[in-house]
Amino acid sequence: MRKKTAHSDKPKGLHRRDMLKAAGIAAGSVLFSQMTVTESKASTLKSDYWDREFDVIVAGSGFAGCAAAIAARREGASTLVIEKMPVFGGNSAINGGAMAVAGSPLQKEKGIEDSVELMMADMLKGGRGTNHVDLLRVVCAGTAEAFEMTKEFGVKWKDVLLQFGGHSVQRTCQTVNFTGGDITIPLMEGGIKLGAIYKNRCKLEKILTDDSGVITGVLVRENYDFPNEESGVLRRYKINRGFVACTGGFGNDIPFRMMQNPTLDDTVGCTNHSGATSESFHALLAVNAAPVNTASFQLGPWASPDESGFGYAPQFNQQAAFPYGIMVDIRDGKRFVNENADRKTRADAQLKHCKDETGKIYYPVAFCSEPGTVKSPTVKYALKEGVAWKFDSLEELAAHFGIPLEPLKAQVKRFKSFVAKGKDEEFGKPIFDFDRSMYLDKPPYYAMRAWPKVHFCQGGVNINTKAEVIHMQSRQAIPKLFAAGEITGGTHGESRLGSCAIAETLVMGTIAGKNAALNKARSRKGE
Amino acid sequence: MRKKTAHSDKPKGLHRRDMLKAAGIAAGSVLFSQMTVTESKASTLKSDYWDREFDVIVAGSGFAGCAAAIAARREGASTLVIEKMPVFGGNSAINGGAMAVAGSPLQKEKGIEDSVELMMADMLKGGRGTNHVDLLRVVCAGTAEAFEMTKEFGVKWKDVLLQFGGHSVQRTCQTVNFTGGDITIPLMEGGIKLGAIYKNRCKLEKILTDDSGVITGVLVRENYDFPNEESGVLRRYKINRGFVACTGGFGNDIPFRMMQNPTLDDTVGCTNHSGATSESFHALLAVNAAPVNTASFQLGPWASPDESGFGYAPQFNQQAAFPYGIMVDIRDGKRFVNENADRKTRADAQLKHCKDETGKIYYPVAFCSEPGTVKSPTVKYALKEGVAWKFDSLEELAAHFGIPLEPLKAQVKRFKSFVAKGKDEEFGKPIFDFDRSMYLDKPPYYAMRAWPKVHFCQGGVNINTKAEVIHMQSRQAIPKLFAAGEITGGTHGESRLGSCAIAETLVMGTIAGKNAALNKARSRKGE
Repeated sequence: MRKKTAHSDKPKGLHRRDMLKAAGIAAGSVLFSQMTVTESKASTLKSDYWDREFDVIVAGSGFAGCAAAIAARREGASTLVIEKMPVFGGNSAINGGAMAVAGSPLQKEKGIEDSVELMMADMLKGGRGTNHVDLLRVVCAGTAEAFEMTKEFGVKWKDVLLQFGGHSVQRTCQTVNFTGGDITIPLMEGGIKLGAIYKNRCKLEKILTDDSGVITGVLVRENYDFPNEESGVLRRYKINRGFVACTGGFGNDIPFRMMQNPTLDDTVGCTNHSGATSESFHALLAVNAAPVNTASFQLGPWASPDESGFGYAPQFNQQAAFPYGIMVDIRDGKRFVNENADRKTRADAQLKHCKDETGKIYYPVAFCSEPGTVKSPTVKYALKEGVAWKFDSLEELAAHFGIPLEPLKAQVKRFKSFVAKGKDEEFGKPIFDFDRSMYLDKPPYYAMRAWPKVHFCQGGVNINTKAEVIHMQSRQAIPKLFAAGEITGGTHGESRLGSCAIAETLVMGTIAGKNAALNKARSRKGE
Repeated sequence: MRKKTAHSDKPKGLHRRDMLKAAGIAAGSVLFSQMTVTESKASTLKSDYWDREFDVIVAGSGFAGCAAAIAARREGASTLVIEKMPVFGGNSAINGGAMAVAGSPLQKEKGIEDSVELMMADMLKGGRGTNHVDLLRVVCAGTAEAFEMTKEFGVKWKDVLLQFGGHSVQRTCQTVNFTGGDITIPLMEGGIKLGAIYKNRCKLEKILTDDSGVITGVLVRENYDFPNEESGVLRRYKINRGFVACTGGFGNDIPFRMMQNPTLDDTVGCTNHSGATSESFHALLAVNAAPVNTASFQLGPWASPDESGFGYAPQFNQQAAFPYGIMVDIRDGKRFVNENADRKTRADAQLKHCKDETGKIYYPVAFCSEPGTVKSPTVKYALKEGVAWKFDSLEELAAHFGIPLEPLKAQVKRFKSFVAKGKDEEFGKPIFDFDRSMYLDKPPYYAMRAWPKVHFCQGGVNINTKAEVIHMQSRQAIPKLFAAGEITGGTHGESRLGSCAIAETLVMGTIAGKNAALNKARSRKGE
């Protein structure tokens, strides 16, 4: 049996040439194979044999995982990122690329007053006061630096600021292509340039411990073919400093979701990628991580029943129809909620108002005038796919969705009067002076149907502000175990505000990766 | 090392004489020592040594544990019940002794139409539709039989039926002394007569498994002195057929509660006994049990800020002031909720209406006329302890609590008019014709302040209808592992209705004990 030795500065056998080559993302697993010691025979899986060895292993290649890998490499730890899916990036890569930043350069430029405290207050209100305030403070306080970090690695941001539901000021920055991939790709490339190894189709099976319960490494399934649990081969990777779980949520794990809340069955849509399942949460509980708020699934109120997954609707509704137009009940043509309230308020309102006693759903319709769609360029694809519709008159729109015309006209008139006054007297939605021309006014109208889909897990494992995972019984940090992002619980309380996921994952991922890397270094110094 | 052999019919060395002797509850642990093989040397805690051996071990001696022990003994399994506290009975013993039964003899006698379906519908409504319907059906369908079982063991029930909040008919039976001890004591005595062993101060430390993960026994701490985790000695008990976790909830585990919801800190009261902590939940997760709805704590809206723990208020408010009187905001003298709504509705209303923007609490006051207190005989103790007050006029009552008098008088007049009409036109509380003389009418008035306390955990581990604990990853039953009662999650969804805990625990405890006992018997037959 051959055993690889520890390498604390850069992965052994990885030369500068390889690092440059690694800038192409697809090269991740090629690179990994280059550093493989020949081993045609199967791993014995005995506890004294290790197939590989790293200072830090990060599971998951979304925002948190990418940030953790960069931070760990910057501290000189040999770093491996494992991703169970064939594609890197997880849910982050299909996210909308919107990040809340308290005190961004753009806010200063536009004279928008914001602060860590104000962002915390907004998130606490959204979370119904049940957020872990210590985590919240670290996240909000870290957003400006995390935002700068993304720019350092080449992430391109638009020159606009958005005000997502529940935020009291415009603080949301937006990537150029309206996708989280605008962030995960540069960060992954940056991590690889720094010497991190990315390996796809490599699933965390189990966190391994010695007889005294201390984490020694991970059991993984290489060449994993999701969701075939028999595919690939088992390998044992040794971990010298820390394991960082950045494995995301479990919103698409329908049986687990239904254990928590049986109404979230397979008839309820989900914006997550298919790999958003719960086995890594289980792996963490198995090493005594404390579970937090397991049943707290966020429903995204801006999804569409006319497409599967995340789709086009969230961008259109969040950046066009909800802020600049209105959403109405098709039975009476009336609004029923502040379309820019926090997600939970809106989803609860949809579920309450647009279902009759028999459970029959009347999907509400959200629409705006053409100028309102300027921040939602993907609406053109939505029109093509039959998810959005364009109408030359309110009469056409009403007829298409079966909305009574006169009440609808009256509602539009009312909303226009609110825009003119600068004050929404029905539901208190913010009306922006500088955006006045974008509000619902005249045809053509763009419309989508809006209905909640499972979007985010507020629950997960308990961590402290160092991103250390907390032991369920001792309530102390579990040595060598870190976590960041959606797999953790507490930061968002009962309901996360939009654009706070990128904020959280980049801040906490960086902290987790750094602390994991420093963990062994510290103990080496005998600290 | 001496090792005890398996004994499938009755505990070895336990003779009929001992069984009769065991009828006295305090004898439980004496009895246990009688069957002890001499062992002055400490247990080695090696995996091939067992201090004792039983077919079935039940952890927890509340309703579920007592029912499980009876059921296991009836199937001929040697049965040990371990209880970590010095006192047997857990929260059950300090519960109010009220049990919802669908189709009780008393309902038939009084001509009250009820059914399993109606009880399920009420519980589903209370649970906001998120109950595990399969478990709910088993519980509701089993109540009539469980009720008969209690009578068989000598439990004495009053000749009255109550209608607790959220129940659409009068279906709640009440023990003679208004305490769960009226049930746990006879059931424990009955179990001991049948040959079950009860051992107190014996804490579950860990569920033990062999190399393949199959449960082999439990590690316990004998002579445990709660909450001193260093007290007593560790012992290994072998389990042949099944382990049944009836360990209750974790409502009094403040650090764990705060992980789930930081607002539930130590300033929030709790009706539970001090041993209602989370270590058994952890022990179950450690053998791969799936967690359900960990953050779902029920707040009891009928508790009083003027006493600690469960106290006198719940009986008074549930059986006197809430059904027959009114609860008012002291700032305006007005009602703000149907005092007989389900618990969540009422507690949410109290927290929403009776706090100002700074968080200052204005405890609402619940009161009724003297005839209304007939079902709450403990009010006399509450008066003595300064938890309740008696007033000879509304003027006195208003002055004592600082309630504006005229609005209060108007509110009382309004409510009296609803009673006269037989219809609560403000909040829709049921007005019972046959109880008409008990409603709020004239002085003297009895009053308490009402404020929510943490009362019950809807969350816990996932089980199926056989009370088998479900594996988090495989979603199959974990061999030899059963659970019942508050340690399980799902039956009650987001909010449990009052008097449904005894119903659930007796039904599911019986199923768990029986199936645990039959488990090995089945496998012996090669099934």
